[in-house]
Order: sequence, then C-alpha cells, then structure tokens
Amino acid sequence: MDDTQHLSLAELGDFITRVLTGLGLGDAHVPAVRDTILAGERDGGGSHGLYRLIMVARTMRLGKVNPHAVPVVRDIAPALVRVEAGGGFAPLAFRTGLPALVEKARANGIAALALNDCAHFAALWPEVEAVAREGLVGLACTPSHAWVAPAGGRKPLFGTNPLAFGWPRPGKDPFVFDFATSASSRGDIELHRRAGKPLPENWGIDAEGNPATSPEAVLAGAMLPFGGHKGSAISAMIELIAGPMIGDMTSAESLAKDEGKGAAPLGGELILAIDPARFQGDRAAGRMQAAEAMFQAITDQGARLPSLRRYAARRRSEAGGVRVSRALLADIEALLA
Amino acid sequence: MDDTQHLSLAELGDFITRVLTGLGLGDAHVPAVRDTILAGERDGGGSHGLYRLIMVARTMRLGKVNPHAVPVVRDIAPALVRVEAGGGFAPLAFRTGLPALVEKARANGIAALALNDCAHFAALWPEVEAVAREGLVGLACTPSHAWVAPAGGRKPLFGTNPLAFGWPRPGKDPFVFDFATSASSRGDIELHRRAGKPLPENWGIDAEGNPATSPEAVLAGAMLPFGGHKGSAISAMIELIAGPMIGDMTSAESLAKDEGKGAAPLGGELILAIDPARFQGDRAAGRMQAAEAMFQAITDQGARLPSLRRYAARRRSEAGGVRVSRALLADIEALLA
Repeated sequence: MDDTQHLSLAELGDFITRVLTGLGLGDAHVPAVRDTILAGERDGGGSHGLYRLIMVARTMRLGKVNPHAVPVVRDIAPALVRVEAGGGFAPLAFRTGLPALVEKARANGIAALALNDCAHFAALWPEVEAVAREGLVGLACTPSHAWVAPAGGRKPLFGTNPLAFGWPRPGKDPFVFDFATSASSRGDIELHRRAGKPLPENWGIDAEGNPATSPEAVLAGAMLPFGGHKGSAISAMIELIAGPMIGDMTSAESLAKDEGKGAAPLGGELILAIDPARFQGDRAAGRMQAAEAMFQAITDQGARLPSLRRYAARRRSEAGGVRVSRALLADIEALLA
Repeated sequence: MDDTQHLSLAELGDFITRVLTGLGLGDAHVPAVRDTILAGERDGGGSHGLYRLIMVARTMRLGKVNPHAVPVVRDIAPALVRVEAGGGFAPLAFRTGLPALVEKARANGIAALALNDCAHFAALWPEVEAVAREGLVGLACTPSHAWVAPAGGRKPLFGTNPLAFGWPRPGKDPFVFDFATSASSRGDIELHRRAGKPLPENWGIDAEGNPATSPEAVLAGAMLPFGGHKGSAISAMIELIAGPMIGDMTSAESLAKDEGKGAAPLGGELILAIDPARFQGDRAAGRMQAAEAMFQAITDQGARLPSLRRYAARRRSEAGGVRVSRALLADIEALLA
C-alpha cells in the first residue's frame, strides 16, 4: 500500500485550517500560519512543510505563544517600521507590517521592518519573495535558539540564524535564497536521528567540543556554522542586527526564555527592502539585464540557481497537488485528540 | 642582516605620500589613498598594506583610473546617497559621501550610500569601522573581477566580493569583520604562487573545472566561493546589490572592461548604515549589553572575535611603528624610477 496520500492544495489548505482551528489558534492567525505551511509543502515540503504543524502545536500547548495576539504597527522613523507581535506567530506580524515596509522603501529608497516578540516556526523565503514581488530587493534574517557554537568554540551560542534574499526579475519569479547559517538545519539533524544515520562531518561537535557525527551527541553538544569563521561571523551579525539592534533577544536569551521546553524560538526578525529603481535612477540602463545575464551564466555552466527547484515544485503542486506521508497526517490528526 | 626596516607610522605615511605624489595621483586623492594603505599596514599588513601600492601604481600606469577625479555627491532619495566617483579611487569617494550617509541614517533610521565608477584596491573594513565609530551599524560590499566560479560551476563569474560589517561598542573599538566571499583572497593565491606552495583544497578549480591545488592552475581556472552553495549565494547577492542594484557593473562586466590588463576592479560599492538607537527606541534597555554578552561568550570559550587581532596590531604599530620588508620597499621605490 502506498504510504502517501494525494491532496490538492485546496484540500491541504482545508486540512491545515481545521488543525489550526482545532488547536485553538485565533481566527486572524489561521490564514497566515496556514498559508506559510501550505507554501512550504507546495514548494517541496520536507522539514518546512506540513511537518511544522507539530512545532506549531507544541509551542501552543506549552503556552509559549499567544494564539490571539494582535500585531500592532508602529512608525518609529521615516524609514523604519516596527510590528509588535505581542507574542504571536510571525506570519501575521509580517503581513501586517509589509504594506508599511513597501511604502517606506518606495518613498525613501530603502526601509527596514522589525518584527518583535514573535514565535518563529517557518522559513524566511516567503518574506523576501513577497518583498521581491513588489519590485523591491529584500533581505531577511532572524536569530533562533542558541544551538550553534562559534567557529573555534565549544559551546552553543548562536541560533541557526537563517538569511534570506530576494531579487525581482521582470516577468519572472524572483531570485530567492534562504538558508541557515549553521552547517545544517536543526531539522536535518533530527531527520538523521530518526533515520539512525550518522551526520556528515563538520555539522557539529559533542558536549566536550570534539568533532562528532552522532546526531544525539551533536544535539547534546553544539551545531557548527557553515563555512568556518566566515559563516560564524555572518551568524554573529544576524544575532546582532535581528536581535539587539531591533530591541529584541539574542538566541541565547531566546533559549533561556524557553526554559528547556522545546518550543519555537522567540524574538525578532529583520526585513530590509530596497527600491532598485530609486537606486539606479539615471544609471538604470541595462542593469536589470546585467542581473539576468548573471543568472543565465550560472545556469549555463550547470550550476544551481537558488529557488528554481522551489518554483518547479510549486508548478507541479499547483497543477497536480501534493503527496503527503500518511504517517505524518496521522501524527497531526493525533494532535487534535 | 635584517631583511625588514623599522618605520614609525609617521615615516611610513610620508613614504606613501611621496610615492603616490610621485606616481602622479591628484592632491585630493593622496591623503585618502595613503590613509587606507597606512591603516592596512598598521593593522597587520600582509596583502592589504603597503603591498597594495603596487596595484595602485599598476592601475595608474594602465590609465584605468582617473588620478584627478572629483567625486560628486548626489542626493537621490531621502535615504539614499550616491557618489559619482568619476573613475577615481574609492577612498576619496567614500570620505566624500560618508557625512551624508551618517546624516541620512540618523534622520531616517537606515540609509544607503552607493559609490559608483570607482577603482577598488583596498579592504572594506575602513568603511564599516568609520560608520560604526559614528554609533551606527555598517554593512559594506563590492563586486570585483570575475575570478570565482559559482558552487557547482566551472567558469569564473563572481568577484571575490568582500562583505564587511561593523557594530558600535560603547567605550570600545567597534566589532568589525571583513572577508572575501571567495574561499581565499586573490592575494593569498598569489602569495602561494610566489612561495611555490600548493593551495589548500577547495580554494579553486582548473580551467576544465577539476579540483586543483596548483596556484597557476587556479589562476588560469577559477577560484571557489567559501562555504559551498551558501557562500556562493551570498556572493551572487553581493554581485546584485553592489552592482546592478546601484546602477553599476557586475564582476564579469568589470573584468571585460579591464581588457586583460590586470588593473584594479572597477565599479560600485554599497554601504548601509543603520541607527540602532532609532531602531531600539523604547526597547533599548539592556540591548547593547546583550550584544556585549555575546562578544564575551565568544572570547570566553576560546573562539576568535573578529577584529581583536587587528586592533592589537594597531596598538603595537601606534606605539612602536612597523617593520616592513626591505624588498617590498625597494619594489615600491622602483615604481618611481
């Protein structure tokens, strides 16, 4: 028997809505969280799709998120906007702040949006894709929980600290990338643990700071940044600019606040938006084409252009729906029991 | 006999001034280029110190820089400023634009400076350190020449595309990092070639796209990004935001314009400045301290905090001067012959 079930995107959306409502998530949050999870499953699934409902449910059960929080937009400077998320999930806070971010970026050339006091369970590409679909260049990052040791160190300090970027492509899907600045995602390590497989080298260290490939040892020790001291520096930057710089927590503070419960990371998120039309001005001639020539040169030499795989999965899912693990669906149904 | 010569920083500055003037660099540019080279030698030397005079001289001899260019500041949007460098070296353009960048960042919360049409021979940390000494968070990047293949590719496309970041620390030197998004700098490969030493693995590929450790083979083939596909994505981002986004060239365009002459890269540079005081607002309590706690946790576990080594070298050089290779001094004197 096939261990997956076929669902159209509409059916999957209805399923997610029923689960979120059943869990007690407030009406305003349901579509925002649903669309984020649905988009993850639609675009390739894995740890950022339906599976995330388990973390959403866990965070709600633990009382670590306010399911009825009402995000409040605050205009804090001509080119800065803040959304006080009030302890709610991030997607509604982002939706609530996006129009002001876009307006400020167009008016000033560059603008920044801080989401404060929110629970993070999702990838960041939906944010930068949304910004790029407005014709703006987008950059987003967030700390998480302190799971990652700095390069050359022995103890968890940084979060997995994802970095996402979006570039508008006239007449095409935006160029988007989004990755953890840790060598792997936390989810990838958990998938190895569930499968009983050793980790690749350089993903983590054990509690004594020694290189380790056992998922359990790394989960008890520390993950490592990607790219050695350079990746480590970028992770530190994300701690600073999406934490203290916007008046929010570091990953160490977020983990301390979790009190060992294993809920979703809490804290801030930073999203920058830049209007290339304003920045190019009278130097615009041929510039968007130069970007296209670079994308073409990447694919022409057989290298991977980030996001193409995601868009291909999206087209397939939109046309033919998705296949979802029956075991995962059962696990999720059990959340409602 | 000692093959190094001792110079005070004042003596070294006078030497650089004499060389630059002798090469025919315009009076307005001399102090800006001198201070940049002097700062590199003061802070640890190597490929970003006095050695860079050779590239400066070469670029001038080739006529690939305008030694008398007058940078022009253009206010292009409330939070954007452009300096048209007119084909001159970047340091004077940066100095010329910095006051407007600082003023706009304070007024709007965030601002961006584009330097356009300039020749780049230096590191970017002087830019972000200057921004951070104004109490602002700074981020800078620039394309270079197309020397680096995208991850999974075979042909040079990206520049070494440095990324620099500065964070103000009350009462202390700013936290600063600055590195190439290639696995190594071009200068490091040239130093290996001059020393007849093989390169570490993953620094580059040969002209057929195969992994290579011969400096000559990599210089004829392509360098690689740091950190695999993640570093490659960041390098692509830098191409876009410090190239086409600001109305300037990609690294491929810069290399084409060089016509094989081997002059300094030409094109743009992007510098962002963000005012943490504006962004923190009524959420400022304890936030700069949280950043300090993160720095402390990095050094407490024996990991390296970027920039500490540079500041230590600076203190030593300020107190006791520097020792410079006599052979390098002779090579530089020969430039004037």
